[in-house]
Amino acid sequence: MTIFIINPNSSQTVTDGIDAAVEPLRSQDGPAIACLSLPEGPPGIQSQRDVDGVIMPLLRKAAELEPEASAFVIACFSDPGLHALREQSARPVFGIAECGVLTAMTLGQRFGVLAILPTSIPRHLRYFGAMGVMQRLAGDLPIGLGVTELSDEDHTLSRMIAVGRTLKDDHGADVLLMGCAGMARFRAPLEEAVGVPVVEPTQAAAAMALGRARLARR
Amino acid sequence: MTIFIINPNSSQTVTDGIDAAVEPLRSQDGPAIACLSLPEGPPGIQSQRDVDGVIMPLLRKAAELEPEASAFVIACFSDPGLHALREQSARPVFGIAECGVLTAMTLGQRFGVLAILPTSIPRHLRYFGAMGVMQRLAGDLPIGLGVTELSDEDHTLSRMIAVGRTLKDDHGADVLLMGCAGMARFRAPLEEAVGVPVVEPTQAAAAMALGRARLARR
Amino acid sequence: MTIFIINPNSSQTVTDGIDAAVEPLRSQDGPAIACLSLPEGPPGIQSQRDVDGVIMPLLRKAAELEPEASAFVIACFSDPGLHALREQSARPVFGIAECGVLTAMTLGQRFGVLAILPTSIPRHLRYFGAMGVMQRLAGDLPIGLGVTELSDEDHTLSRMIAVGRTLKDDHGADVLLMGCAGMARFRAPLEEAVGVPVVEPTQAAAAMALGRARLARR
Amino acid sequence: MTIFIINPNSSQTVTDGIDAAVEPLRSQDGPAIACLSLPEGPPGIQSQRDVDGVIMPLLRKAAELEPEASAFVIACFSDPGLHALREQSARPVFGIAECGVLTAMTLGQRFGVLAILPTSIPRHLRYFGAMGVMQRLAGDLPIGLGVTELSDEDHTLSRMIAVGRTLKDDHGADVLLMGCAGMARFRAPLEEAVGVPVVEPTQAAAAMALGRARLARR
Amino acid sequence: MTIFIINPNSSQTVTDGIDAAVEPLRSQDGPAIACLSLPEGPPGIQSQRDVDGVIMPLLRKAAELEPEASAFVIACFSDPGLHALREQSARPVFGIAECGVLTAMTLGQRFGVLAILPTSIPRHLRYFGAMGVMQRLAGDLPIGLGVTELSDEDHTLSRMIAVGRTLKDDHGADVLLMGCAGMARFRAPLEEAVGVPVVEPTQAAAAMALGRARLARR
Amino acid sequence: MTIFIINPNSSQTVTDGIDAAVEPLRSQDGPAIACLSLPEGPPGIQSQRDVDGVIMPLLRKAAELEPEASAFVIACFSDPGLHALREQSARPVFGIAECGVLTAMTLGQRFGVLAILPTSIPRHLRYFGAMGVMQRLAGDLPIGLGVTELSDEDHTLSRMIAVGRTLKDDHGADVLLMGCAGMARFRAPLEEAVGVPVVEPTQAAAAMALGRARLARR
Repeated sequence: MTIFIINPNSSQTVTDGIDAAVEPLRSQDGPAIACLSLPEGPPGIQSQRDVDGVIMPLLRKAAELEPEASAFVIACFSDPGLHALREQSARPVFGIAECGVLTAMTLGQRFGVLAILPTSIPRHLRYFGAMGVMQRLAGDLPIGLGVTELSDEDHTLSRMIAVGRTLKDDHGADVLLMGCAGMARFRAPLEEAVGVPVVEPTQAAAAMALGRARLARR
Repeated sequence: MTIFIINPNSSQTVTDGIDAAVEPLRSQDGPAIACLSLPEGPPGIQSQRDVDGVIMPLLRKAAELEPEASAFVIACFSDPGLHALREQSARPVFGIAECGVLTAMTLGQRFGVLAILPTSIPRHLRYFGAMGVMQRLAGDLPIGLGVTELSDEDHTLSRMIAVGRTLKDDHGADVLLMGCAGMARFRAPLEEAVGVPVVEPTQAAAAMALGRARLARR
Repeated sequence: MTIFIINPNSSQTVTDGIDAAVEPLRSQDGPAIACLSLPEGPPGIQSQRDVDGVIMPLLRKAAELEPEASAFVIACFSDPGLHALREQSARPVFGIAECGVLTAMTLGQRFGVLAILPTSIPRHLRYFGAMGVMQRLAGDLPIGLGVTELSDEDHTLSRMIAVGRTLKDDHGADVLLMGCAGMARFRAPLEEAVGVPVVEPTQAAAAMALGRARLARR
Repeated sequence: MTIFIINPNSSQTVTDGIDAAVEPLRSQDGPAIACLSLPEGPPGIQSQRDVDGVIMPLLRKAAELEPEASAFVIACFSDPGLHALREQSARPVFGIAECGVLTAMTLGQRFGVLAILPTSIPRHLRYFGAMGVMQRLAGDLPIGLGVTELSDEDHTLSRMIAVGRTLKDDHGADVLLMGCAGMARFRAPLEEAVGVPVVEPTQAAAAMALGRARLARR
Repeated sequence: MTIFIINPNSSQTVTDGIDAAVEPLRSQDGPAIACLSLPEGPPGIQSQRDVDGVIMPLLRKAAELEPEASAFVIACFSDPGLHALREQSARPVFGIAECGVLTAMTLGQRFGVLAILPTSIPRHLRYFGAMGVMQRLAGDLPIGLGVTELSDEDHTLSRMIAVGRTLKDDHGADVLLMGCAGMARFRAPLEEAVGVPVVEPTQAAAAMALGRARLARR
Repeated sequence: MTIFIINPNSSQTVTDGIDAAVEPLRSQDGPAIACLSLPEGPPGIQSQRDVDGVIMPLLRKAAELEPEASAFVIACFSDPGLHALREQSARPVFGIAECGVLTAMTLGQRFGVLAILPTSIPRHLRYFGAMGVMQRLAGDLPIGLGVTELSDEDHTLSRMIAVGRTLKDDHGADVLLMGCAGMARFRAPLEEAVGVPVVEPTQAAAAMALGRARLARR
């Protein structure tokens, strides 16, 4: 049985970054962890329309994978289709935003979020409000780069460090949460530069999926 | 110019009920108010999948109507596509759940919601949480009937009255909000039977749309 | 039948500004909308004492108007006497602060308020707390001008723009709410200068009153 | 110097009950504690209009007393004029609802309130919301008796015990707060009957006023 | 390297139940998971004094284990010493209440808690408040049995089922959380009887610890 | 009978400062107020371990004092052992953080806290969350000095004034709360320099204890 991590955008680079990030969670006696892109998705999910538009293709893809699945992870920070997939599937389903936030709550009292774009932030706030965790939010600030622009690693990292420091110093964040699956490869240097724990949300979700999958074997 | 009220399910009965409910908002010097069904939608929107599945057809329909539109109202209590349509359109966009809640907040201190089905309730709670208004919620209880079952008027009304009384007497609601566009025709008898104001959410949204449309003329 | 918008201060300039602001809401087939000052009120309502002191005269004035009224709007951002008038009157009663906030909640995720004076702010915060909407507040900042000082239009507008930009850039507001009925004439230039929607609260309340009045005809 | 406890209704019976309740707070070396009724007030403060209507006379009375006052306590559970008197007076000002809630928060995790009438409850909820303490509220239930009806002691106490038990058993209250200054004499028997601490709000406010007055001497 | 799950009471039965519950989380390529009791602890942790009294012995035990530890789990639902151990240790530290709540938040919108005793509940509520998750709490009800009484399996299970059904039917819980490490063996039958997911908090914490430990290897 | 104010650190300087601060609360006809240090405590309570480590000695000391006690005050801003002592003792028990916050809530709408060290702040936030008062918090900022460093009075006061002004000007605090019992002697000059009321938390708690003790005599 396999934990399927579905990146609902079509960028293989993002999926490769995710695959590398979750490698330490693979073990000899399983479950397997497979990462895949959604070819129907846009190169990056940036607008509410992008979020809503990938739900139906994602549900179809998950339906195909259901027989082999022990769990699903939706690897986009807007958790598109999370509740619809929970309805559809008999397997545990995890969203990276939800798990990222919950994991950050074990590492600090106030979490700061690094969003890609300013327009992401009202969407995040609605989601944190729906989760009922606004009291734990220190701040949510954009780095001002779209998903595809994240491939310029030096520029991206320097923006993430600048925003991370603002979240820590001016907003009181004692843990940071990266607000995009495409930021996975920047976790370690960001943590080192800012000096507070940094949560990579796909790792957070995959770790919770791993536990749930193993416990369900019982 | 026209306020378009889009019922994202395919039930003409529901759309007819909406049309009657908003009739008093029409005036000689406009704007016009047009109510339409979404043929691609299911007969009733009951699951999260139903909600998510109507968003893309709804966005397409709204794009067609944009040139003639002065405002849009999305007439399903899950407000499907509300934020995506706000991105897409240059016109004001209203959701009936959002406007229903906001209007209820002018009529009582704690609003009680009549949901159709038990499975609607977690979806409502996520939405009220995203709106940041949970402190004003008295309770949200199902009448236990699907959208199409609402056509049995006597049974529906008696269930609505029973649930409305429970919300008032046991949960402290001093205003009720009907949690489905298909309940429009029961507003007056429900209000009379329970003895607290009852908000019909499509009326609430259409009223706010009317004001916004007129003010935008300026 | 008439919607009465009562400005509970004695400044005809403020009332004239309100009258102009709600003009687009008037329609051939009614209801009429009449704006009046309260001669017993102070020139501007700035202190808690001012707020509390106008309630009894306001209730008397509303009692006189009741037979011709289809709805009442209390046009002071502290909503003086809102709940007492709701007790007294058989008509719908709206406060501009309440309706301004609710309307802002349809236009952005975090609203920023422009107060007149620093001493207004704790009063606003108590009110937003009573409404249960603090989670949606980005910030509430004073422009530092009393009601009568608003007549210096250039100075007032430049202060409003400066404070509006701070609310947007530093506090994350994506919609602004003008915290005084006397600011009505600055809505359009403020919106243009800051680049986010600006809610004029008397318009917001009058729009909701218009809808309620028309729906009550039924 | 004297702590003035102003009962803003005109009922001497209520004032006498308050006077007896605060007797243990009087000490040889002061400050003196004087309790007075407000002749301009109604026999009982039950409606929002009653609340708003006593503010101006209360402010006038307090202005007269200011030279001799070391602190003021407003002894009505709606805290009429609390913030206006804080503006007006150079002395510390306490409201019995505010102090009653804060004191209850030192005695249990969830406080239950005994209101006089059902119409009191939305007013209480607005106030607790303004205070930002809704998370600590277990419930607020009416005993269904007006202020003057409290003089029937047996009936009142039996209603208070019944409602107190409901608050404890069904709503999880671990401390009770009496929601009317006229309930003072029922504190001890109610506490004994229900088995959780009961806060008499005028005692709570007078105790805080006593401390503030003594500390200000410094 | 080993994940140490420390049951801070001295009951080997409880520790054995935990050991069985986390068995599915063990894998060939580790990390090892070791469960131990705290001999200095009481037979059951039931009072605030019990909670506070085990912190120092727990910190000493953890200091001894630190060199071999990859993570710590504190297996008491009051999470005694959680933040002190986070200060002391260079390893990740998890509390079962914190992780139980966070895990429940991925399984339902409102979680219901089964406490052992009525006196546990204010302590739980303070903790959920500190976590900032009160909006997600449906209710917290006692089964009325002390830790050692849980050994009467039939009686315990029947009490748990009765309370679980009340949480679901009357309080709207759509996921249950067992509020004591000693309840581990009742998870499956409780879930089956009540018909909503049931979170066993030590499993929840051990699963999160497993993920964190594996990811830290990187 | 005596109100015992227990400073759970071992610093006699801090205890002397407390003793001076509560002097105005002593009256001829009692109760007596006695301040004592806890010799087993550290020189200053700065870490969570410090907090947790003083609970058992504090409980033992309080048990000794019980026969002579009319109330207890725990004079450390982390309120160590507050709920355990409430369990143990038949007397009223007050914590200075709890009472300091509640008292600040009578003096302003948003309180700002001056913490000693950055590491104090997450602990404070958990506590304010447990109290359910986060909505009233303007901000919590460290002065960056440990308890023993507070003896350098000039440096401490200048840091407190700088932080107090930031809390007022940038965070909107209209009342300040000193977050350490060792700051007592700086209350008056801080208040004068910043221009908003400043709460000394041991005074706040002792005042509430005095009232409770006198009322219990009845």
